[in-house]
Amino acid sequence: MTGRHEVLVAGAGLSGSLAAIYLSRQGHTVRVVERRTDPRLSTAEGRSINLGLSQRGIQALREVGLLDELWPKTTPMRGRMVHTADGQSFHPYGTEDHQILHSILRDDLNSALVDRAESYGVRFDFGHRVVALDRTLPVLTVTDPAGESHELKADLVIGADGAFSAVRAQLMRGERAEFHQEFMDWGYKEITIPADDRTRLEALHLWPGRTGLVVAHPNHDGTLTATVFLPFDGPGSFAELTTPERVKAHCDTEFADLPGLVPDLVAQFLSHPTGSLVTVRTAPWQHDGKVVLIGDAAHAVYPFYGQGMNAAFEDCSVLARCLGDGDLPGGLREFEARRRAHTDVLAELSKQNFLELRDGMRSPLFLARRKADLLLHRLFPNRWTPLYTMVAHTTTPYGDALARARRQDRALVAGLSTVAVTVAAAAMTALVAARSRRQVR
Amino acid sequence: MTGRHEVLVAGAGLSGSLAAIYLSRQGHTVRVVERRTDPRLSTAEGRSINLGLSQRGIQALREVGLLDELWPKTTPMRGRMVHTADGQSFHPYGTEDHQILHSILRDDLNSALVDRAESYGVRFDFGHRVVALDRTLPVLTVTDPAGESHELKADLVIGADGAFSAVRAQLMRGERAEFHQEFMDWGYKEITIPADDRTRLEALHLWPGRTGLVVAHPNHDGTLTATVFLPFDGPGSFAELTTPERVKAHCDTEFADLPGLVPDLVAQFLSHPTGSLVTVRTAPWQHDGKVVLIGDAAHAVYPFYGQGMNAAFEDCSVLARCLGDGDLPGGLREFEARRRAHTDVLAELSKQNFLELRDGMRSPLFLARRKADLLLHRLFPNRWTPLYTMVAHTTTPYGDALARARRQDRALVAGLSTVAVTVAAAAMTALVAARSRRQVR
Ligand SMILES: Cc1cc2nc3c(=O)[nH]c(=O)nc-3n(C[C@H](O)[C@H](O)[C@H](O)COP(=O)(O)OP(=O)(O)OC[C@H]3O[C@@H](n4cnc5c(N)ncnc54)[C@H](O)[C@@H]3O)c2cc1C
Ligand SMILES: Cc1cc2nc3c(=O)[nH]c(=O)nc-3n(C[C@H](O)[C@H](O)[C@H](O)COP(=O)(O)OP(=O)(O)OC[C@H]3O[C@@H](n4cnc5c(N)ncnc54)[C@H](O)[C@@H]3O)c2cc1C
Repeated sequence: MTGRHEVLVAGAGLSGSLAAIYLSRQGHTVRVVERRTDPRLSTAEGRSINLGLSQRGIQALREVGLLDELWPKTTPMRGRMVHTADGQSFHPYGTEDHQILHSILRDDLNSALVDRAESYGVRFDFGHRVVALDRTLPVLTVTDPAGESHELKADLVIGADGAFSAVRAQLMRGERAEFHQEFMDWGYKEITIPADDRTRLEALHLWPGRTGLVVAHPNHDGTLTATVFLPFDGPGSFAELTTPERVKAHCDTEFADLPGLVPDLVAQFLSHPTGSLVTVRTAPWQHDGKVVLIGDAAHAVYPFYGQGMNAAFEDCSVLARCLGDGDLPGGLREFEARRRAHTDVLAELSKQNFLELRDGMRSPLFLARRKADLLLHRLFPNRWTPLYTMVAHTTTPYGDALARARRQDRALVAGLSTVAVTVAAAAMTALVAARSRRQVR
Repeated sequence: MTGRHEVLVAGAGLSGSLAAIYLSRQGHTVRVVERRTDPRLSTAEGRSINLGLSQRGIQALREVGLLDELWPKTTPMRGRMVHTADGQSFHPYGTEDHQILHSILRDDLNSALVDRAESYGVRFDFGHRVVALDRTLPVLTVTDPAGESHELKADLVIGADGAFSAVRAQLMRGERAEFHQEFMDWGYKEITIPADDRTRLEALHLWPGRTGLVVAHPNHDGTLTATVFLPFDGPGSFAELTTPERVKAHCDTEFADLPGLVPDLVAQFLSHPTGSLVTVRTAPWQHDGKVVLIGDAAHAVYPFYGQGMNAAFEDCSVLARCLGDGDLPGGLREFEARRRAHTDVLAELSKQNFLELRDGMRSPLFLARRKADLLLHRLFPNRWTPLYTMVAHTTTPYGDALARARRQDRALVAGLSTVAVTVAAAAMTALVAARSRRQVR
């Protein structure tokens, strides 16, 4: 089966609508079904949520020619601004001008993707929920807003329906499928920080508490969207912070100048919903040239590396290349083979980066190491690239980036050992010489 | 809520029917719903499948007073009989008479458990399938053989419905539940070995192939039930062995004298179904004093340590003790806290033991180490107990057994190092003494 295909995409989120663009550009007929309403009509829960776009996401948007249109809607983040009781300190992301992140509103991005897909003839059915899948045909069963059920036939079904994917559940059913789902014992709430001269815009802001972590991205209008991460249970947790007094006391002791920047912090905290954070790994990602998973449906990760959307966009790019010659079974197998090991690595890195953001940003030792990392990169740009730089500012596959970082570390240890041994040997030689001189005298 | 409760058990398999006995003996009212037909009326798929009972299972059966009745139905296995091209060799399980396993037919065991539970007034509804659960009430929805749906209310629902538990799926629904499911890339088929003078009965028989592994337990009637483990795909796999010629050629080269012992090996191989092997880990195991998981529903493990049923029986014993004072919420929490870490360890040990059975049994080095292990145990019975002995022949919790085995290994390495250093020091002293003597001369 090669050539042009009928493609059904479940989910018009970030990965579903970008995949629709890639595949319609390749000449396939694409239809997207999405449970929610059109992102162009309403903002989810009335709040502005933003995301950090980095190199992998940028590269994919460039490939489909969307970058120029989106660029003006982004706000650059040139480094981390760390807020502690001692004040603010700025830590640049990289050594070069392009090594920065870009903050963008989720709804702006999603709307632009849907608009562009429609311009290629993609049909979107909003308010349509996937309830079943026969993966052997494949046929997708959806219910429309009136509750009517429809069976949609296609050559290929793409499951882009997020971390709790209905397509994935049907793909796994009765198969020897691997599945791992883990929730973090911390959750999050979104808070808006009003525009204020005291917050420098072009940075990702961090308030690393002992119990709790706040991360904020800037918006175009001068506001920032902050995400407050806290444990679900125990001291200083969401379970405990249920009265204005307790919320105020906790934020005052843990989050430095944040309370001063957000007059209604307590009210926002008590009224906004609490979200949970999940890591999902699964295998296989595809079935017989007929069904494939992308984005969070295939690999949801904790948000601490800011790579979930970026990895989802990279999936779309790789999938489009794998399907280039229209061979569905071979293309889907190749996609999984090229991608899965790397997103498994991303899942691990995303877990570890939580500790880096929470504890590292308050540790002078860690911050010194991070500075040394960037210094080595400046001195030996071709031989030393910090792991963070490779993950955020290049499109080196995640697994290759981790392997290279480990090689660099080993080389550094070996190098430092050689230096140490040389110094020790020199000292010894000097000592022996001094001794023999003494004996001679 | 303390005192006597209404308990609903999903699943009348090994753990469900034993749990019913424990709880009805404590005075609770117990009802069991089971998808299949009564095990006393028919043998599953007409074949005799047997299991190895070891100390944990024996202990639980003793606690409920069932051991004397079951004992005559078991066949002892005093060690492993390893079949290779060079002939058979016997390796005892332990150093003492009681350190043996006992083979029993699954149906004999299950029937005895159901009989005993009924004698305590437990009601069994066979042909009833669990389709839903409201964990907050709790209410279990079941469909009867006529397809009618019933809602059953209880104080406590016990999910004993196996590795693909419907109760577990409902317990996890919308919760921050951890879930891990992994299938082995090997599957299995059951084969009957007819009664024959050449197979010594009182042993577990092993045919370790390069591609493939056969394990057989003896039955009372002189036959053995063998399980043939093979990869699903690749050379020598189930996918390849689809013709009589290929099956015969593979068994002839891989499984030593097995083809000679089973005249219809090829016919059995080609007609029996292929099963898959799953590891399941999940958390939490319980909800608010209302729902709890036991047995494979809570922790399915690969069968290579022969501990799945034994761990399931141990669950029942621990659960009954935790519920002793009738406090459901506290008792269920205590059960999970006391048990989960240990069954997680069992999952790992069960994976590793596959390699021991497949590769270790053909490795002279491994067999020598195993002998040394038993020798150390004989010399220092209180200070050295092999890991296998602790797992199979004691009721030391799995995690404690592993920790102790690691301590023993470290002590041995330390001891051997001390010996090595002492020997080296003595040699050095002797050398120096010899030298100085030489110089004196
Ligand atoms: C707090 C937080 C911060 C984050 N920050 C960043 C960041 O800075 N940078 C970054 O790269 N990533 C970030 N991420 C990750 C990013 O949000 C996700 O990786 C990304 O949204 C995944 O896109 P997706 O299209 O695969 O899934 P989703 O965005 O979840 O989209 C799935 C779509 O499928 C629809 N759907 C679901 N079920 C059905 C159904 N049954 N039928 C029909 N439709 C259905 C949903 O309504 C949704 O529209 C963050 C995540 C969180 C939680
Ligand atoms: C090849 C093989 C060899 C093994 N050998 C050994 C061994 O030697 N020693 C050992 O200790 N263990 C062994 N095991 C493991 C052992 O079989 C299991 O651990 C044990 O059966 C678990 O008991 P259980 O009652 O928890 O689950 P099960 O025995 O699976 O019982 C679950 C019951 O629930 C019922 N059920 C399922 N879904 C529903 C539903 N929706 N509604 C109602 N009822 C339902 C099922 O019909 C079944 O009767 C082996 C396993 C395998 C696969």
